[in-house]
Amino acid sequence: MSHDRSAPELAALGEFGLIDRIRRRAAFQAPGTVLGIGDDAAILAVPADHELLVTTDMLLEGVHFRRGWGSWDALGRKSLAVNVSDIAAMGGAPRHALLSLGVPGDLSATHLEQFLDGFISGAEAWGVTVAGGDTCRSAAGLVLSITLTGVVARSRAIRRSGARPGDRIWVTGQLGAAAAGLVALRRGLRPDEAWPSDVDRPAWLGPTEESALRAGLAAHLAPTPRVAAGQALQGCAHAMLDLSDGVASDLGHLCTESGVRARVSARDVPVHQAAHVAARWAGQDALALALSGGEDYELLFAAAEDPLAFLRHAAPELPVTAIGRVEARGSGALLDLPSGEAVPLVGGFDHFRA
Amino acid sequence: MSHDRSAPELAALGEFGLIDRIRRRAAFQAPGTVLGIGDDAAILAVPADHELLVTTDMLLEGVHFRRGWGSWDALGRKSLAVNVSDIAAMGGAPRHALLSLGVPGDLSATHLEQFLDGFISGAEAWGVTVAGGDTCRSAAGLVLSITLTGVVARSRAIRRSGARPGDRIWVTGQLGAAAAGLVALRRGLRPDEAWPSDVDRPAWLGPTEESALRAGLAAHLAPTPRVAAGQALQGCAHAMLDLSDGVASDLGHLCTESGVRARVSARDVPVHQAAHVAARWAGQDALALALSGGEDYELLFAAAEDPLAFLRHAAPELPVTAIGRVEARGSGALLDLPSGEAVPLVGGFDHFRA
Repeated sequence: MSHDRSAPELAALGEFGLIDRIRRRAAFQAPGTVLGIGDDAAILAVPADHELLVTTDMLLEGVHFRRGWGSWDALGRKSLAVNVSDIAAMGGAPRHALLSLGVPGDLSATHLEQFLDGFISGAEAWGVTVAGGDTCRSAAGLVLSITLTGVVARSRAIRRSGARPGDRIWVTGQLGAAAAGLVALRRGLRPDEAWPSDVDRPAWLGPTEESALRAGLAAHLAPTPRVAAGQALQGCAHAMLDLSDGVASDLGHLCTESGVRARVSARDVPVHQAAHVAARWAGQDALALALSGGEDYELLFAAAEDPLAFLRHAAPELPVTAIGRVEARGSGALLDLPSGEAVPLVGGFDHFRA
Repeated sequence: MSHDRSAPELAALGEFGLIDRIRRRAAFQAPGTVLGIGDDAAILAVPADHELLVTTDMLLEGVHFRRGWGSWDALGRKSLAVNVSDIAAMGGAPRHALLSLGVPGDLSATHLEQFLDGFISGAEAWGVTVAGGDTCRSAAGLVLSITLTGVVARSRAIRRSGARPGDRIWVTGQLGAAAAGLVALRRGLRPDEAWPSDVDRPAWLGPTEESALRAGLAAHLAPTPRVAAGQALQGCAHAMLDLSDGVASDLGHLCTESGVRARVSARDVPVHQAAHVAARWAGQDALALALSGGEDYELLFAAAEDPLAFLRHAAPELPVTAIGRVEARGSGALLDLPSGEAVPLVGGFDHFRA
């Protein structure tokens, strides 16, 4: 809509030059790509007996990410990964992405290229075609908005609303790593850099603990969406979502949409080693990081059957853990603490300090 | 992805409160809505023998719009309208919108509600379901990103690439009104307000001229996408796009994608009266406003047949004008000036000053 869209540093390239570059580099063609970048809209074909999934995420500099925390390449990949995770959480296969970029004047063409490298390599890895988008100048910080489509066999998408009393509540992977990574980033730790000289290092924090924190950095900066697992869980999950905000908040959504109440056992929550280290370092609670830190992009689902048989071939390395149970029709969730006390499982951090 | 998403003024409502409000208010269900707001992704059904269209536009405060230029309601409606125009330009029917909002701390809940009123009333008017989106806090200005889907019968979408030598180049409506509106907005004129006391008013600018300028304001702030016309033109248009950047730029895209060169006659360009007034007021050229001002959201298309028969029922009030011709295979476009001189038709304003 604007008449002055080019960022100063990108002036030589221009808006249409940038679009052309993306178009040439994003050569992968997912099934159903009738027409990609270069027209008023992309044209997609949805296979017979399938439905289309569509999700979108906005990422703002200074709110969702900061320059210098990770590479531009990693940011590009992550901005797509969080959307791929949403498609995975429906049990779908990701297909077509639209990438909208608001580019600030102080972003160099080199960094923008690195961002695009990460986005496009992620797209290829996840079988996604970059089919369109929008580019404009931003007056304040990099603005990213990604829309991703996916496909799923008709009526087979796994919604948040299908959990039933008697189902167990499961999570993939281990929780709290991304939150631990955020703690470490805020305190100055960076991937591919030695421990910073101006950051206090406790005597107890040895190489094993540092290695755990670095796994947390990687989890925060380069999350792995559970695409194969999500599709395999079509066979048994009654309800599912991805852990973007944390179990406390996300299980609440599942309960609300399903009209059920659930109960989680703190003892059963698979807390990532990074969360233990970061919690000790920051004087926080490891369980709180695991339950309300967010950004793990693991899958949380309700199933009556043991999901292991469904995941064995699709994701043989991926741990899956039962952390609780759907108790009855109703709403909300309780958390059984190791002390024997039961507390409401809600978003706020302080609620978990027991 | 963030853990601190709520804008101060919206703190009471919160992110999920805002989403719930949108969900309750956006009740219209377009065909194919399997699952709307409230899950990781929307689920859409595409009718048999149809293809899906998908387009996206990002609008940033300070780049694409300014507070106080028009109502929040109009901004909401326009942010959807520009996407509807893209679907119309493919000959499609708009269906499902995703609305992503980055909300700054200084935006009042009242203004956000007014924005949503405009967006949702537009959605209802154009037969669109609000099926999802994302909300977050913005550190700098309102950030809008809208994705819109549409449907079109298989192989019937009108691309930019189908123009053939011998086709005539047509436009709907009159051009330059939105650019004239932008001139007037920049000079301080506002809709629903009297002529501002601190803005010089030339002696020649009478009620008729002011009325033309106000039509320009309306064209800029509340564009009308040509949905019915776009669909009707499936019958005859070989190539089509919407005029978002102006004929000079947009016809260039059509020529590039079609591999043709075109020739436009300045004498035949339907220049809106607002452009004549704004040009005189600002010492600019009315033809330049009409050809490179942008944001008219009229349709530009190439067709061998006279389109009037196709538009008669779908859009009986809408003018349609032949402004030129596809000459041959090749690239680029020429503009025949009234002086008899022919100049390259390219984006820059100065090129049209003759």
